[in-house]
Amino acid sequence: MTAKAFQDYYPDDLSYCYGCGRLNEHGLQLKSTWDGDETVATFTPQPRHMAIPGYVYGGLIASLMDCHGTGTASAASYRLEGREMGTEPPLRFVTASLQVDYLRPTPLGVALEVRGVVEEITGRKVIVATTVSAGGETCARGRVVAVRMPENMVPPSQA
Amino acid sequence: MTAKAFQDYYPDDLSYCYGCGRLNEHGLQLKSTWDGDETVATFTPQPRHMAIPGYVYGGLIASLMDCHGTGTASAASYRLEGREMGTEPPLRFVTASLQVDYLRPTPLGVALEVRGVVEEITGRKVIVATTVSAGGETCARGRVVAVRMPENMVPPSQA
Repeated sequence: MTAKAFQDYYPDDLSYCYGCGRLNEHGLQLKSTWDGDETVATFTPQPRHMAIPGYVYGGLIASLMDCHGTGTASAASYRLEGREMGTEPPLRFVTASLQVDYLRPTPLGVALEVRGVVEEITGRKVIVATTVSAGGETCARGRVVAVRMPENMVPPSQA
Repeated sequence: MTAKAFQDYYPDDLSYCYGCGRLNEHGLQLKSTWDGDETVATFTPQPRHMAIPGYVYGGLIASLMDCHGTGTASAASYRLEGREMGTEPPLRFVTASLQVDYLRPTPLGVALEVRGVVEEITGRKVIVATTVSAGGETCARGRVVAVRMPENMVPPSQA
């Protein structure tokens, strides 16, 4: 049995994100799940996602961390409240800030593992430490500060 | 007359970056130029680049800052040396770290202006402060630490 990803619980109106929306046919469709107390996602970049021959462009790494971070923030908030994801009221997050340190070139053509660890979770803010690794080697480290989605961003059907 | 963009001077082998490579037909093809002592690029996201309805996804903002930052680092280094871009030996940069603060939701459907200011330029490292704005309003602020491309990343034909 494959665990349902965090993003699979997002309501349809919030599932068009280029990075992680399951309904964005042009997007990356990142899928994040729990792995014990950490979160994990796997993504294999396409040849087009090149920086220079053989390596992944930095914006993709940032995108993976961003969407994995907000997904982790949401999942961790449900878990903290002892609730199943997808139950009402929804706990939706957006990114307030993103920090990425590129430690080494990220090879293109292999599966990348994105990991998240909740560093801090306080009310409306969740801080998630993230890594992106290839073949067991950490290529980038990051930190996502996720905050609850402002009410004025919520689509009318989800308000 | 339209000024040639920084990225138009990149050698062919280094022009396939998803964010700014002029030869990546699937990519964003960002074009950065000088505007006095600042650098500027304009980019209009496509509908697919959505985070949620009406707003741009954060990974795109990060990508624009990243590529504008490394382009600015290269251009500023040539300028510091009093050389025209594209002259030998080449000055190529990659991103060591990227910080993005998302100040407000970035609207989708309008042209975004990416700006860069060199904060520090010392030998192999250039720090570029960046903003992304829409309709004159700053939506995100960032900082790119760019470093000279490691020799082992340089494609053989450009070594």
